[in-house]
Parts: sequence; structure tokens; C-alpha cells
Amino acid sequence: MSHIAIIGTGVIGTGWIARLLAHGKKVKAWDPAKDFDVRLRSDIERLWPTLEKSGLANKATMSNLLTTPTLMEACEGAYLVQESVPENLQIKQAVHQDIGNAVTEEVIIASSSSGLLPTEIQSIYLNPERFAIGHPFNPVYILPLVEIVGGEETSVSTIEFLKEFYASISMYPLVVRKEIEGYLSDRLQEAQWREILHLVNDDVANTQELDDAIIYGPGLRWAMMGTCLTFHLAGGKSGMRHMLEQFGPALKLPWTKLKAPELTEDLIEKIVSGTSKQAGEKSVKELEKLRDNCLIEIIRALKKYQIGAGKLR
Amino acid sequence: MSHIAIIGTGVIGTGWIARLLAHGKKVKAWDPAKDFDVRLRSDIERLWPTLEKSGLANKATMSNLLTTPTLMEACEGAYLVQESVPENLQIKQAVHQDIGNAVTEEVIIASSSSGLLPTEIQSIYLNPERFAIGHPFNPVYILPLVEIVGGEETSVSTIEFLKEFYASISMYPLVVRKEIEGYLSDRLQEAQWREILHLVNDDVANTQELDDAIIYGPGLRWAMMGTCLTFHLAGGKSGMRHMLEQFGPALKLPWTKLKAPELTEDLIEKIVSGTSKQAGEKSVKELEKLRDNCLIEIIRALKKYQIGAGKLR
Repeated sequence: MSHIAIIGTGVIGTGWIARLLAHGKKVKAWDPAKDFDVRLRSDIERLWPTLEKSGLANKATMSNLLTTPTLMEACEGAYLVQESVPENLQIKQAVHQDIGNAVTEEVIIASSSSGLLPTEIQSIYLNPERFAIGHPFNPVYILPLVEIVGGEETSVSTIEFLKEFYASISMYPLVVRKEIEGYLSDRLQEAQWREILHLVNDDVANTQELDDAIIYGPGLRWAMMGTCLTFHLAGGKSGMRHMLEQFGPALKLPWTKLKAPELTEDLIEKIVSGTSKQAGEKSVKELEKLRDNCLIEIIRALKKYQIGAGKLR
Repeated sequence: MSHIAIIGTGVIGTGWIARLLAHGKKVKAWDPAKDFDVRLRSDIERLWPTLEKSGLANKATMSNLLTTPTLMEACEGAYLVQESVPENLQIKQAVHQDIGNAVTEEVIIASSSSGLLPTEIQSIYLNPERFAIGHPFNPVYILPLVEIVGGEETSVSTIEFLKEFYASISMYPLVVRKEIEGYLSDRLQEAQWREILHLVNDDVANTQELDDAIIYGPGLRWAMMGTCLTFHLAGGKSGMRHMLEQFGPALKLPWTKLKAPELTEDLIEKIVSGTSKQAGEKSVKELEKLRDNCLIEIIRALKKYQIGAGKLR
């Protein structure tokens, strides 16, 4: 069995290694930092009990990790290279130049970038079709989401390979169909983050208050239901359409620094039919019951660690 | 023991009633809709098993709910009036005019508005000091967050009364120190929601994909940790300061339709010192461990209902 090469062993690279080892995969890792292997091994050892708790594959062992003194050696013989160096196009391009020189042309190469355009990164490759973004979320060894974003030159088979590979390590691969800066998840996070920066900058609230505004309310729902399905439920019996009628006018109000698009019939239709498909066979009442039971269970889970809503009552 | 008057029995008003009854409080409710009492009683009956599951007070009983044929009768003798009529300034002002006529001047009056300015609602009162926003989150009988927002005329004692009252029904009262449209929590939600509308409008993604982008990743964290503390952990050992150095430049990139404020030294200082206070005595490593344990527990909770990340593996 061949291995996965992990290039860059910061928070994200280390997270990938932990997840891969927990799933019994063989890993070769390299990082430009001096003595990175000492730090890395101690991090993996520290994480091991957590990985055990979330469930190890039978053949999972720390000895499946090899660290190498050069990028070339980590990449040699790998069937997949996952790059996780700092979020900077020039740095990424330089590293991918080296990766391209180190592997044969059929090897799939993914970047953990959280927002750069894949077309720009892959432009340095002679075989750009085998490159795509595979963007995970911190902590990579627990959170299942990974966004797959192809560039203009990425082949369908590269996307398919990555979908299957990530699913094989218990992840939820979300293929982003249109190349866009920040992809999907970080755009939603970033909109919230920039609003936070404005509110702190304008002395409206501090970071603690803004975090509290999430973890005691909407954040509990977001563990199980996104904003679209949540708003479908907020509309009562007639769901999203009623919600848009009731709160549509608020889109004109300065309820965030972000201007909304015009709520055209076309947009309403896309939102309403989308959420109705998500709801599937379930009525709003049934979804409410599922949401409520699940929220009670989540709060119970938080009680175990006396954090957020688990601290109350 | 006197009662709380609930004016408006839609999704939010009904949620208030359920929470109040579960905490053994006496409620009188009124809504302009014909036969609202039939619908309301059947909703409360349907919710009762859920309330039992999340824990009832000893003296909790559905018979503590009285519905009245007029607003006047619901308000008479109440020590607190909680208004939850549709989100429209004219409608709210008209209803508060009636409430003002129905109660004596020391009665505290709160509005469940999710974004209107309290100063504008309270302007119709002869005794505006006893009015404030008390904005809860759906489902009101489970989520603990309630934002308290005073207007220009609101007295400190009104805010204090509401803080104590909401805490007495197991809520987490978050006092919004500066009056602002959308308050705190909805501004953060609304920034995300408007970004969603843009992405759907631009045909980048559909509602299902955008919900998936949350529930398999950042949403799991948001149940326990807000964006600020989460980003503190994403920065590795040196926390938020490192995170701002690394991702600060991304604020200039079009990673959302929302423009960020300038990342001045002053803003950096506010964000870094704020999150460092939140972290308290805990090192990044300790917080990581707490986050990881908690995430594993949340995913376990979701498994029970086979929803979101609980469906995987």
C-alpha cells in the first residue's frame, strides 16, 4: 500500500495526519520548519486519546507516520499529495512547483487553501487536470466537511477521486460547482466574521458578547440545521415562503453592513423550492420535533463539559 | 401570584408561553386571530412531551394558561407584558398603544422584535422607561439566548428586571449595550443569510449545499464556541494574534460580498485582548482538548437522530 504525502504540518497539516492515521492510512510528512518532526510527533501523541475516543480503524497506528527531510522524499511514491502551507498564492505556487517536480503525472494533488482560486494555483502545473482544492475544517480529525473545488483545468476524474478518497476517511465531501473566492463555507463564515469586526470596531460589542450571541442561540441550531432549513421552520406552517414575506422587507434595513440582493420572484422561487426539497417528505411540524429533540440532546452533550448552553440551569 | 401577558401567539409568542408554563409561570395570552386559543392550546399540548424531556418545574401545568378575548383582559394585573406581533414598526406601535392603555405605569413591557429600534417603539409611551426589547430565539422553549436592548428612554431598573426575570426561566440574557438595528445575534445571522441570498442569486450554490457547508463543519463548533474563540484556536499556539497575521490579508479579498473594516492596530488590540480574556486561564492546547471532547459529544448526540454529521460513518 502506497501513502499520502502531507506538505506543511501546521494546524491543518497536523489535523490531516491525525485523521489519516486514525483511518489506518500511511503518511509521509514534510514541513520547511526545522525540527518539525519533533513537534509533529508530540502533537500526534497528544491527540491520540481523542482519536481513540472518536473511533480508530483496526490497523490505525502512529507508526504509519514517516517524516522526511525533503519535500521530494515525502512525495515520492505517493498516490495523493495534500498541501497545507500558509494561505498565500506565491508561497502555494512555489510549493506546488516543487510538488510537480517530485511526482509523476498521474498523482492527484490537493491544496487545503481556504479561499484561493484553484485556477491560479494550478496554473504552474504541466498537468493541471490532476489538481483541485480539498479544503478541510479545523479540527480536521473531527469535523467531516471538506470542500472540493476544481479550477478551469481540473478533470472530472480528479474531482471523483477526491470525493471517494475523502469519503473513505469519513468526511463529507461538498463539491463546489462554481469556482469562487472563499468557496461556500468560508464565505458564510467570513460574512459573519467581517460583521463581527465591524461591531467590535464600532464599539457596539466585544468578542465575548458576540460569541455569546451565537453559542446560546443560533449556534445550537447550526450544529444540525443550516440557516435555510432553520428559516423554513421559522415561517410556521407555510415555511420559507411565509418567512420571506414576513422578513423580506428587513433585507432593506441596515441589519448588517452587507447589502442584500433584490428579492426577485426568481430568487424567492430558488430559495423556496430549494428548502422544500431539503424538507423532503417531512412537514414543518415533523421537522420542528426533530429539531427540538436534537437540540435537547446537543445541550445535554454540552452539559457534560459545562460549556455554553450546557452551563445553564 | 400575578401573571405574564403574552400579546401575539405566532411561532414566537407560542414559544414564550411554552417556556413560561414549563417554568411554572401563570400566563394570559391574546392574539387578534379568530379562534387563536384553539390553535394555541393544541400547539402547547403537542409541545408538552418536549418540554417534559427538557425538564419541567414542579408546579408546571398547562392549566396556568388562560386565553382572553381582548388584549385589555390579558394585560390586566400582569407584572410583565411580552409582545410578539409581526415585525413591522407600525403594527408594533399600534399594539403598544393598546398595551399602554391597559396597564398601570409600573408594569414592565418587552417586545420580541428581532431588529427594530426600541427607541422608535417606546416613543408612543407616556412612561417609556419601562419598555425594552427582549428578543428570544426559535424555539423559544429550548434556546436560552435572549437579547435585552434598551432604547434612549429605557431605565436601568427595567433592564435589571428583565435580566433577572429571563434568568429565572433558565435563559441567558445578553444585554446589548448600544442600540443598533438587528442587535447582535441577528446581525451575525443576517450577514450570513444575505451572503446565502447572493450565492443562490448568482447560481453559485443551492440552499442544500449552503446548509451542508455549515452543518458538517463550522456549525458543529458554533454550538459551543463562537467565531472569535474558534479563530483564537485556529491560530495555533499564539492564538488570535497569529490568526490575524495569517488571515488578515484575506480581509482585502472578495471572500464575501461584505467589505471588512480596516484592520488597524486598535482593532487588532480589541480582538486579541477580547479573545484572550475569553480564553481566561486556559491555554490554546487546553481549549483544543475541551473543543475536541465537546465536538465528539455533539456528533454523538446527532447520531441519535441520524441528522447532519450524525449520519456519517
